[in-house]
Amino acid sequence: MAARLSAERLRGILLPFPTPFDESERVDAQALRANIERWNGTGVSGYVALGSTGERVQLNERECFAVIEAARAVVPEGMAFIVGAGQQSTHATMEEVRRYAEAGADALLVITPGFYRSAMTQAALIGHYLAVADAAPVPLVLYSMPDLTGIALAPETVARLSEHENIIGLKDSSGDFVNLTETLRLVPDDFAVLTGNGGLLYAALSAGARGAILAVGCVAFEACLRIYEAHANGDSAAALSLQRKLTPLARAVTVRYGIGGLKAALELKGYAGGRVRSPLQNAGDEARVEIARLLTEALSHGPQGDALTGSDDYA
Amino acid sequence: MAARLSAERLRGILLPFPTPFDESERVDAQALRANIERWNGTGVSGYVALGSTGERVQLNERECFAVIEAARAVVPEGMAFIVGAGQQSTHATMEEVRRYAEAGADALLVITPGFYRSAMTQAALIGHYLAVADAAPVPLVLYSMPDLTGIALAPETVARLSEHENIIGLKDSSGDFVNLTETLRLVPDDFAVLTGNGGLLYAALSAGARGAILAVGCVAFEACLRIYEAHANGDSAAALSLQRKLTPLARAVTVRYGIGGLKAALELKGYAGGRVRSPLQNAGDEARVEIARLLTEALSHGPQGDALTGSDDYA
Amino acid sequence: MAARLSAERLRGILLPFPTPFDESERVDAQALRANIERWNGTGVSGYVALGSTGERVQLNERECFAVIEAARAVVPEGMAFIVGAGQQSTHATMEEVRRYAEAGADALLVITPGFYRSAMTQAALIGHYLAVADAAPVPLVLYSMPDLTGIALAPETVARLSEHENIIGLKDSSGDFVNLTETLRLVPDDFAVLTGNGGLLYAALSAGARGAILAVGCVAFEACLRIYEAHANGDSAAALSLQRKLTPLARAVTVRYGIGGLKAALELKGYAGGRVRSPLQNAGDEARVEIARLLTEALSHGPQGDALTGSDDYA
Amino acid sequence: MAARLSAERLRGILLPFPTPFDESERVDAQALRANIERWNGTGVSGYVALGSTGERVQLNERECFAVIEAARAVVPEGMAFIVGAGQQSTHATMEEVRRYAEAGADALLVITPGFYRSAMTQAALIGHYLAVADAAPVPLVLYSMPDLTGIALAPETVARLSEHENIIGLKDSSGDFVNLTETLRLVPDDFAVLTGNGGLLYAALSAGARGAILAVGCVAFEACLRIYEAHANGDSAAALSLQRKLTPLARAVTVRYGIGGLKAALELKGYAGGRVRSPLQNAGDEARVEIARLLTEALSHGPQGDALTGSDDYA
Repeated sequence: MAARLSAERLRGILLPFPTPFDESERVDAQALRANIERWNGTGVSGYVALGSTGERVQLNERECFAVIEAARAVVPEGMAFIVGAGQQSTHATMEEVRRYAEAGADALLVITPGFYRSAMTQAALIGHYLAVADAAPVPLVLYSMPDLTGIALAPETVARLSEHENIIGLKDSSGDFVNLTETLRLVPDDFAVLTGNGGLLYAALSAGARGAILAVGCVAFEACLRIYEAHANGDSAAALSLQRKLTPLARAVTVRYGIGGLKAALELKGYAGGRVRSPLQNAGDEARVEIARLLTEALSHGPQGDALTGSDDYA
Repeated sequence: MAARLSAERLRGILLPFPTPFDESERVDAQALRANIERWNGTGVSGYVALGSTGERVQLNERECFAVIEAARAVVPEGMAFIVGAGQQSTHATMEEVRRYAEAGADALLVITPGFYRSAMTQAALIGHYLAVADAAPVPLVLYSMPDLTGIALAPETVARLSEHENIIGLKDSSGDFVNLTETLRLVPDDFAVLTGNGGLLYAALSAGARGAILAVGCVAFEACLRIYEAHANGDSAAALSLQRKLTPLARAVTVRYGIGGLKAALELKGYAGGRVRSPLQNAGDEARVEIARLLTEALSHGPQGDALTGSDDYA
Repeated sequence: MAARLSAERLRGILLPFPTPFDESERVDAQALRANIERWNGTGVSGYVALGSTGERVQLNERECFAVIEAARAVVPEGMAFIVGAGQQSTHATMEEVRRYAEAGADALLVITPGFYRSAMTQAALIGHYLAVADAAPVPLVLYSMPDLTGIALAPETVARLSEHENIIGLKDSSGDFVNLTETLRLVPDDFAVLTGNGGLLYAALSAGARGAILAVGCVAFEACLRIYEAHANGDSAAALSLQRKLTPLARAVTVRYGIGGLKAALELKGYAGGRVRSPLQNAGDEARVEIARLLTEALSHGPQGDALTGSDDYA
Repeated sequence: MAARLSAERLRGILLPFPTPFDESERVDAQALRANIERWNGTGVSGYVALGSTGERVQLNERECFAVIEAARAVVPEGMAFIVGAGQQSTHATMEEVRRYAEAGADALLVITPGFYRSAMTQAALIGHYLAVADAAPVPLVLYSMPDLTGIALAPETVARLSEHENIIGLKDSSGDFVNLTETLRLVPDDFAVLTGNGGLLYAALSAGARGAILAVGCVAFEACLRIYEAHANGDSAAALSLQRKLTPLARAVTVRYGIGGLKAALELKGYAGGRVRSPLQNAGDEARVEIARLLTEALSHGPQGDALTGSDDYA
């Protein structure tokens, strides 16, 4: 059974893991568990199942629960286990968060509805999230992802929603850094603002973010964690140097090659990647070569460029 | 049981009806049937259930089948009964079209996937639609609706897909008239191009479109049918005059006030409208006054402005 | 000397001619005059010098007057001679229209300012145009060209400005056909609405536009004029067939290959084309081949595809 | 006489000052000089005349030289004196930079051409800037300002241009922080990357930017300089706290109220502000009240919120 996640614990680097599919595009629960078991020891603070990287919108209900169940079984108590949610209607979202909480989610990451986007005023979004927060047995994390939904949560909207005791944080995956800093200015100190944009990790931490939920973290957790620690230690030169190497990889496994790119990177690193579901496209040979190059660079050490040592991960 | 819809029969004015909900936001099948029974005698040539106006993305699976069943029971054999479909994954869309066909759809109107929009290249869309067309027991109509999905089907893409014998037409709801005419140039004569933009009805017909699937048609079928007939009779002055009065209403019940506006207009006309599902917003008092005004204008007759007579519909 | 242009005379097909440059990118006044003298006999009703196709923003003041002077000398009295204008400040635009009127313009085509685009509210644009109209010795034609300026004139704005006696028309180069029809609904009958989008020529005429100012007209005046006449004669089948062949060429010499493409097309047709000014790019070999193909198609006759005869123009 | 500006000296906070106009919208050279003389002692490292904040596109040639002359006379030798430039054609830009250099500019800030935006490929921009750099007697600073021009310089483009010895830096006014960091990764260490976005000041410095050219700096130089120093001293808590108060003011005097807002803020601070030129709008009463509030907050000291002391500037 899940424990309520406190905002306090929502910090550090969290991994919004992809859902491995086998050759027939079926969910591969065993591969999923194996991945998580290896990530458990790396220092990351938690997971997001069924995020946009997890292809939730491509899974049916049964598959969603299979993913939650598989992951829940291997995520240790001390780590955050967040589940992605969010339907187009408020009512369906309320039902979904109830069922995912029951299935073991410590918190829900709830994406903005976006299909009827011209109707999604900030007022409509506030009403939506308040109703969902009232209904949710576990805390909510807001999810602003305008590249996918066409909808951005305004800083003032996040501030208004942060007053609800069951809304504990925000994942901001936009590239709008000024908006992120405005949000940080407007929310209470105990509200957990996380970035979802790997290229902004160090900047977001410097601006006061608590942590990050990063697709690129699934393959470059070492780099992400080092940036997090360098920032915590006030070592801005190291953080900056690491960030510069991380950014091109982060873009490659999100914007440029998408989830197919991330799954290819996972395989290069010795994790289970597998296929994406159509109409998403798997990474081609050229993409794999480029991703391998960026992965090596991102995982190299400091200005000296010496390779990672002591890692059993990187093939 | 459904009959395969031929492209030949896909013409005239079709109504993508909204789904009536009662005060508790539950599907009201009786109200839905009553609406259709009244529309049956108006001269429209068919229906689209579960289109974007039908709030399909806000319904669960059970509700979707309830809507199909209720509508199927009252749509006469001679009229087209099309059902809206389209999931984010190719596989889920294939399953959906199979089941909707089994439930009685004559054809499926399949919207482009759009969540992972940067991955939705025209090549990916071609692969998606070909796989769905292969799987579908009844014909497909392509659905390009960039305002909602962020994805437009290029004229060349439609031309390529029109070669598949199970893809019989296109609903183009974009406002890009040049693209529409390019599409008409590139597809075979027996491919049914329909507009989904009420402001473009007369222009689209003049450009060679076969007909239209229009939300505004649910409340202004008379005006839409008159435009269709005026065009068929070569009476461009009448068509133009009617179109100019229709356009403001068309925009009001789509872009400006959305589905809430359309439902308010239905009630003004004596049909069942009902509520929209949150987070969509019902039309406020000011919107209702404006919609009533635009409805009266759109339904007035020619330059003389005399009212519709012989209509039992308009309150 | 110029005569005031009446709205009545603002109809038919007008040519917004490009400015020929020699190998050193200098204005070639002789080539410009030669082009106009050949166009004079084609049936077009007038010209726009220094439009966006005329690279006005790339010319200095002296060159602008050289173009006006060269063109004015060879444009016959009975044809409209309009000059493009529009600076970022209201005051500079007022000065410009005064001087261009003095130099012989029958009317000015005044583009919206767009550099400070977030400040260009419809209210600011109304104030701007009213001040310019008050100052102008000859009538103004509004120019809405959002692809270049980022600013569209709303139908209500055009309607408001159409009340000024010195504002006689609009060139709408946007692709937003619904907006165009809304504008036509809102302005008085004696206000001249022209399209600037070659792909919309027939549709715009069908919607009530008086004519068109078309870059593609410089190389395909025959096709444009035939569409105009077919529409006037109610021969919609011919108009539609001609339009379908014109559209791909229209896009090629505007959106796709830009002014470099139009100049290449002029040369293919035996007119003076010449170079564009950097950083614009001249058409490459591949573009020229494609343009030649589209030009041949656009100038072929009806469904039989027989070539233009009796034309001394086409090489 | 001007000295070539070295990239080395291009650091700290520079002020892109607005051009004061009197009641008749004429350039007020005396007010301009008075403003500069007061800024000279504040610690800022230089100026940009005729930037986008300077309404260059609203000035005629004579006025541009009047502004350069007035400013040049009062900018001390040790401070950078940069002049804004950039016409739509390469040739006109080459002429402009020659003349502005002759008039006393230490360097030119050259904005991307943007009128023919679909033609402005990165390759076209590279050709444009290389030609201008070859022609310029003093160094160039690239200027990427997509909100105004619709054109962004890609990191790879900046990297390519940074190889030219006469191109010494970049002002990046976009809000795309990931792009900024990519640029910093790709350019040589002696290439001066500056942000033009006040909301990104601290983040940009943390990412390796040398400094900033900030409109908001004209009224909040104290805050900007303190952020710069706090960053230099590694005092990130102070920098962050100051940044959070600066951001809302920065947005108010740029995006929200524009140059009219900045001029109102200047007057509130006791500097010469004056009117903007039409069609730009002066700040209304409500805007002035809001700006006054944000100005007070931005200039308050640290978390204690105690007022600035020892400043003779703030009324």
